[in-house]
Amino acid sequence: MSAAQTGSIADIHGTQGFGLNNLPYGSFDAGAGFRPGVRIGDSVVDLRAALAGHPRVSDALRVALDTPSLDGILAAGHLVWAELRELVTVLLGETPVDDRLSKTVHAIASVRIGMPFTVSDYVDFYTSEQHALRVAEIFQPERPELSRAWKHLPIGYHGRSATVVASGTDVVRPKGLRLDGSAATFGPTRQLDFEAEVGFVVGTTDAVSEVSLEDASRHIFGVVLLNDWSARDIQMFESAPLGPHLGKSFATAISPWVVPIAALENARVQPPTRDTPLAPYLDDRGMQPWGFDLRLAVELNGEVISRPPFSTQYWTAVQMLAHMTVNGAILRSGGLFGSGTVSGERRDQRGCLLELTWNGTDPLPLADGTTISYLADGDEVRITATAPGAGGSTISLGEVTGWISPATAMKPV
Amino acid sequence: MSAAQTGSIADIHGTQGFGLNNLPYGSFDAGAGFRPGVRIGDSVVDLRAALAGHPRVSDALRVALDTPSLDGILAAGHLVWAELRELVTVLLGETPVDDRLSKTVHAIASVRIGMPFTVSDYVDFYTSEQHALRVAEIFQPERPELSRAWKHLPIGYHGRSATVVASGTDVVRPKGLRLDGSAATFGPTRQLDFEAEVGFVVGTTDAVSEVSLEDASRHIFGVVLLNDWSARDIQMFESAPLGPHLGKSFATAISPWVVPIAALENARVQPPTRDTPLAPYLDDRGMQPWGFDLRLAVELNGEVISRPPFSTQYWTAVQMLAHMTVNGAILRSGGLFGSGTVSGERRDQRGCLLELTWNGTDPLPLADGTTISYLADGDEVRITATAPGAGGSTISLGEVTGWISPATAMKPV
Repeated sequence: MSAAQTGSIADIHGTQGFGLNNLPYGSFDAGAGFRPGVRIGDSVVDLRAALAGHPRVSDALRVALDTPSLDGILAAGHLVWAELRELVTVLLGETPVDDRLSKTVHAIASVRIGMPFTVSDYVDFYTSEQHALRVAEIFQPERPELSRAWKHLPIGYHGRSATVVASGTDVVRPKGLRLDGSAATFGPTRQLDFEAEVGFVVGTTDAVSEVSLEDASRHIFGVVLLNDWSARDIQMFESAPLGPHLGKSFATAISPWVVPIAALENARVQPPTRDTPLAPYLDDRGMQPWGFDLRLAVELNGEVISRPPFSTQYWTAVQMLAHMTVNGAILRSGGLFGSGTVSGERRDQRGCLLELTWNGTDPLPLADGTTISYLADGDEVRITATAPGAGGSTISLGEVTGWISPATAMKPV
Repeated sequence: MSAAQTGSIADIHGTQGFGLNNLPYGSFDAGAGFRPGVRIGDSVVDLRAALAGHPRVSDALRVALDTPSLDGILAAGHLVWAELRELVTVLLGETPVDDRLSKTVHAIASVRIGMPFTVSDYVDFYTSEQHALRVAEIFQPERPELSRAWKHLPIGYHGRSATVVASGTDVVRPKGLRLDGSAATFGPTRQLDFEAEVGFVVGTTDAVSEVSLEDASRHIFGVVLLNDWSARDIQMFESAPLGPHLGKSFATAISPWVVPIAALENARVQPPTRDTPLAPYLDDRGMQPWGFDLRLAVELNGEVISRPPFSTQYWTAVQMLAHMTVNGAILRSGGLFGSGTVSGERRDQRGCLLELTWNGTDPLPLADGTTISYLADGDEVRITATAPGAGGSTISLGEVTGWISPATAMKPV
């Protein structure tokens, strides 16, 4: 009898960061339409099929699985999330593997992977002190400091939900108005950039607002990697006085496997010490820490050019969520919010080319002897991350990858 | 035989700006669940019931009507919009009224009115030159000018879709961080404001991008009145460097009856002369004019305090839509975009209290001898508008009304 016959699904399908301690969720299509799945190793388990007829599945969970993506699960709330994780952990750990269960497993390479959920509102924050300081140094060298509010609240803005796409979607170089010397001209961006971020996925059974830090813990389903693609020249021209718009709205990519917060218990770390007193709704002293030791890596055409450490972000996910709703704003299921660029102290920890190349003025040397300022057509950017799991293990957050395709043709006037 | 028996539905139910030349759409519930309706006078016709069994209804339209709101109609595209308007115009104009048709008509006062559609992405623009200039004068008196990009492109930013609400929803005074002298303190806003705007409702059969001005004409379904409720103190503290967030995201209200663009043919006017050359994707010379002679009125507790003229807005709806997608950003059905505050030259044409009271420093005298700086609890703001219809008639855009309720209690620390 081979190991394939005696081991559990987890044994058979390996781990590579996707073992029983991780179990991220996504949406896949193996030919019968998109449906929710859980990843184990390089395989995906069809949740609807695997749990069909299972005596311990609640009605709420069964309804939740009857959607093409994770939308139903997100809207089912945190109790159902806990139920699902427990069921799946037991099922995939069972030895020997039930024949029926084996039939619900597909190699990831053989299926289509979709957007994991439908994004309702998307908010992007700006929570790395190093990133915010460096941007100030670059653009306001005469006053290289954080904005007045930065340490009082997590600065953020709304982005475009419709253009949040899954990893692997080509990024077409955006066109827009930008300065050519002192003249405003229209054309493809010359300063195409990535931003390595972490995204948080929100679920809720009801529309809620004024969410406390404690309640926020129950509304954050999981984590994705996020690339906030940016066109710096377009962004700089348009941003006064209402902030970024087209410089950011052409593409925001996320990794397709949502790692549950429950998988990151061993990655929790205290956020940096706050040197400014916080309003009560943001004061997280005494609560379970919501910093995470996520270790990002950014690859440009296969070469690692940065390793941004998420543990240094000043504001945490629960603070961002509490802030976002303290004014009465409604939180719907399917919300997505990003951390903003993750950047550390050192040059090789900076999470975007704006910082890595000082807005193109100090090009970054690459292994082949060339340098880069901003992205060229044909470049591929891949962001990965790992986190510590139980017992010295490692959890993978997967990847968000995008390839730059040339701008579409300029239309004749 | 009475007039009620011999006249058409339009004759019977009167007009008051809602005659056969208007026919706005909305979502209502007369007891059997929300469904699409068309307004005539002070009545609403149940579209699903009125067109059931009608021999000339296309399959696409029948499917489109089978949703609780206008979502299906928006997603059915402009050919179906034209079909629906033609069918309804004929049906409601017929004499005598068919008995079956009468049974599909409900008094608006007897039904519940809902959100007319599900907002996918919400973008708010800043297209009044007078408003933008005045804001610059108020906040940067040392440099009272438009931002560098203002006349090159319509400045805008994304807002929160989840908190777009229908007229009549109470506005709870938002809490947030704002400056108290030089100290950041948390509490209810002291500078609660309205912004009188016009909103445009987007429909499309497919997700599209790089929408030309001509194509934009086919994606704009109709018009609503929009109140972009604003908390100026919260907005001012948070806005550097990424723009407004919580100062705007607590409530955005729209009128519940979407006036079709087809009803506004007689309201079309040339937009103001542009004094800056435009990029080809924004150059609207030679096309049908997309300015509209909409005459707004703002009432505070029943007293008209301003009459902003929409015809003076510098950028048009098709320019905003073309701009929003020129970078490859995806446009989904259910999109909503706002004009930004509508403001004219004169004080009594300013569309927000920020301008009307010069940020509270020059309070506005009211009829009862008192003055107002910003909104107090209990205040009611009502925005209405009319437009010229055919043959000297007047079309009503209805109203967006909101009442300020006190802030929720401060939670114990």
